Amino acid sequence: MCFFVLFGGSGNLSMKKLLPAMYNLEFENMLPEGLAIFAAARGDISDEEFRLAAKNSVSKYSRFGYDEQVWERFKSRLNYRKLDFEHVDDYRKLESELEGLEKLHENPAGRVYYLAASPEYFSPIVKNIKAAGMSLGNGSCRRLVIEKPFGRSLASARRLNREIRNVFPEESIYRIDHYLGKEMIQNIMSIRFTNAIFEPVWSSKYIDNIQISILEDAGLEGRGEYYESSGALRDMVQNHIVQLMSLVMMERPASLDPEDIRDQKVKVIKKISGITPEDIDKNLIIGQYTKGVADGEKLEGYRHEKGVAKDSATETYAALKLSVANSRWKGVPVYVRTGKRLKERLASIVVEFKDFSSIYGLKAYSGLAPNLLMIKIYPEEGISFQFNMKKPGSFDKIVPFSMSYCKSCEFRKFTPEAYERLIHDVIEGDSTLYARWDEIERSWMLIDSILDCKVRKRENLHTYSAGSNGPEEADRLLEKDGRRWWN
Amino acid sequence: MCFFVLFGGSGNLSMKKLLPAMYNLEFENMLPEGLAIFAAARGDISDEEFRLAAKNSVSKYSRFGYDEQVWERFKSRLNYRKLDFEHVDDYRKLESELEGLEKLHENPAGRVYYLAASPEYFSPIVKNIKAAGMSLGNGSCRRLVIEKPFGRSLASARRLNREIRNVFPEESIYRIDHYLGKEMIQNIMSIRFTNAIFEPVWSSKYIDNIQISILEDAGLEGRGEYYESSGALRDMVQNHIVQLMSLVMMERPASLDPEDIRDQKVKVIKKISGITPEDIDKNLIIGQYTKGVADGEKLEGYRHEKGVAKDSATETYAALKLSVANSRWKGVPVYVRTGKRLKERLASIVVEFKDFSSIYGLKAYSGLAPNLLMIKIYPEEGISFQFNMKKPGSFDKIVPFSMSYCKSCEFRKFTPEAYERLIHDVIEGDSTLYARWDEIERSWMLIDSILDCKVRKRENLHTYSAGSNGPEEADRLLEKDGRRWWN
Repeated sequence: MCFFVLFGGSGNLSMKKLLPAMYNLEFENMLPEGLAIFAAARGDISDEEFRLAAKNSVSKYSRFGYDEQVWERFKSRLNYRKLDFEHVDDYRKLESELEGLEKLHENPAGRVYYLAASPEYFSPIVKNIKAAGMSLGNGSCRRLVIEKPFGRSLASARRLNREIRNVFPEESIYRIDHYLGKEMIQNIMSIRFTNAIFEPVWSSKYIDNIQISILEDAGLEGRGEYYESSGALRDMVQNHIVQLMSLVMMERPASLDPEDIRDQKVKVIKKISGITPEDIDKNLIIGQYTKGVADGEKLEGYRHEKGVAKDSATETYAALKLSVANSRWKGVPVYVRTGKRLKERLASIVVEFKDFSSIYGLKAYSGLAPNLLMIKIYPEEGISFQFNMKKPGSFDKIVPFSMSYCKSCEFRKFTPEAYERLIHDVIEGDSTLYARWDEIERSWMLIDSILDCKVRKRENLHTYSAGSNGPEEADRLLEKDGRRWWN
Repeated sequence: MCFFVLFGGSGNLSMKKLLPAMYNLEFENMLPEGLAIFAAARGDISDEEFRLAAKNSVSKYSRFGYDEQVWERFKSRLNYRKLDFEHVDDYRKLESELEGLEKLHENPAGRVYYLAASPEYFSPIVKNIKAAGMSLGNGSCRRLVIEKPFGRSLASARRLNREIRNVFPEESIYRIDHYLGKEMIQNIMSIRFTNAIFEPVWSSKYIDNIQISILEDAGLEGRGEYYESSGALRDMVQNHIVQLMSLVMMERPASLDPEDIRDQKVKVIKKISGITPEDIDKNLIIGQYTKGVADGEKLEGYRHEKGVAKDSATETYAALKLSVANSRWKGVPVYVRTGKRLKERLASIVVEFKDFSSIYGLKAYSGLAPNLLMIKIYPEEGISFQFNMKKPGSFDKIVPFSMSYCKSCEFRKFTPEAYERLIHDVIEGDSTLYARWDEIERSWMLIDSILDCKVRKRENLHTYSAGSNGPEEADRLLEKDGRRWWN
């Protein structure tokens, strides 16, 4: 028997992502038999009302769609308890109910506390979990899943972490970066460490540069207030992009043990450099969208969005030239970019290799297109490789070709959502795809150092039209190095 | 102005391959303006009769098909001269005609003598060229193209070479191996030397084994008498397969100069080893086809083919385990196979890489499928790469995927025939895709040493049914090493 307590269980994230993901696991018979789910939130609704809402969202968002038999199994796990995040009494009531259920069995049940609430409630919930005596497992495990954002600066992240660590030990804390649950992100390690052909060329000797893009066509989607105090660097670079960098650039772990993997990831994060007050102008481009048009639809400028200040200096776009200061990556620029209200939705990692003749000679073959290994995260999930061959029908002209494998084209329905994997893993106690404290701390140190510079340089905020490719200055960031973004 | 003299110009090879190839070059405006073609053969036909025959074969065999304008241009180049290969007077007559034409211009014309005749005429033709004074260019180049086979043993190849070299210097001799003109064979060098990702892993450290297959479904096609005195080792291994090995396994040339390339190729050929009297039983499988069925059609056994002895011991199939004894390839077996009357027509090169975990550790990932780089020569022309990723929808299962680029699927019409390239190159004086004498000499040394062993072991001739995959023993050749053929 085990309990999955979903704080904020009737909110947006739960309804759109978490409950459909758990239903999908049910569909695939991957939920443990005795698992009971307790959604806990402020609303005064009954179990039946909650189940009906869950049924609707499952029907709408599950990749398998509604299936009566699966739903009946899933429904029987679902419970709703009214709980005010700041009222310890509500926690005590829940605790005594769970305890009562446990007494029907021999052993205390394992528990997952999933914080799917607004970030301002993370601290109160954790404090009240402790106050109500819910954190002590009497030998059974109690795991805490904490959603992003994990703080909004190094100081606030440290404060939050202290509060959590005051209640749970590090090994029980599962910090979500849902990007890590995505199939192609998991595949970065698979690609690197199951294919003998890549590891020998995975260094500055053969790689010219690395590009990481997470571009969004979406705007704020009602989260203007949150975004206004965050911006692209905090919202996307600190977590997703730093995590992608660490997976692409880490050394081989000693084993696939989560701690071995995270030890290697954090080593990379510690060595990320490139942004100092001296070179911030050269290596950081920030932008904010103004009004524009996409698909014939008129789009507001950022400063006219709800919850945004009329003179806001929040960046909705960031492009950075970074590097990793270790022997493997010496001299390899890592160009990263992310932004909102762009022309298209695209996430990818591009590894650009050096020119053959620049490494080995053979002048006759100089100036050719580079080899590109692309790991595509969305909209397509897959991998592609650009290489050179003779142009068919020509005698000696060498031109680039591309071969690719599109996983999502073949397997869409069979591709688990990121949250399925993550929920499965926390139930199983596998923390590989969750961020450890030192990873988060180090990436906040990086972002804080950039933000410190940025504040002093806010006059450098560029503008770009909503629905465009972002500020042109982001292209120049590469052009001045004789390079270009690969899309 | 220049002359292209086609000895055997009304024969099968000329009609099916050479004239259509030259017409294709015409189509693409790649024939020099003043080029005149003189077909010379025994038949007593007029220019007009020859042109009609050429028109028919061009219409049938050109990849562009008949085009009136192109044909008219091409036709105006075509001449036919009756010539008995063994009558020096006929050569003298031709020479005086060509000289007469030259006098109309200021400079003596460059000439290509193309020997598209039966091999027994190679010597007489070359001798008579000399006797008729046709070999001396008075400053203009005279090039000799000699078709395969170049001898049928080291001794006969040396004899033929002496006779030719008695007339022409090495740099004027163009020895045909039409395999070298195939698009994907030319692409071996392009792939290796224009893509930075392959060179670092192109050695025994990362490559487990290399496989070269040239499988034919065809039988003897009327050439029983020739084949009976040749066999698979002489007919396919000595030339095509040894050439493919040298292209795949050679060191980087200093430049793309033909001599630099051929210097590197011959170094590999010199180091091919693996067949000694002691290990011939282990490393050589030979077979001969017996009657069988393909596509519902009954096929004769080899010994019942026309021109074949009833107790023939000629091998129609050969599979060998070879190696290249240098530091790059130490310990890497090269499995090659070729045969006639097999189930399908297929030519490919497969580079099988070692297991990641066997090189780098990470036990959790051991026992996975290997990376395979396949260069496909026919029926499809292209490249494919097998790599590992997580099985979609599974949590941790790693399975092989394949990505490929099929050149012939996209560009069939734009793919030049092997002979187009080769004819173009000899006109231009580029000998890169022709075999130099030392390459041929060395590969005959190899084949002779194998044949010497084989004669003593002819009781080892296995049988296989026509239309089958060849003798099962060829599979065991790899199985006993824990490997398999990749198709």
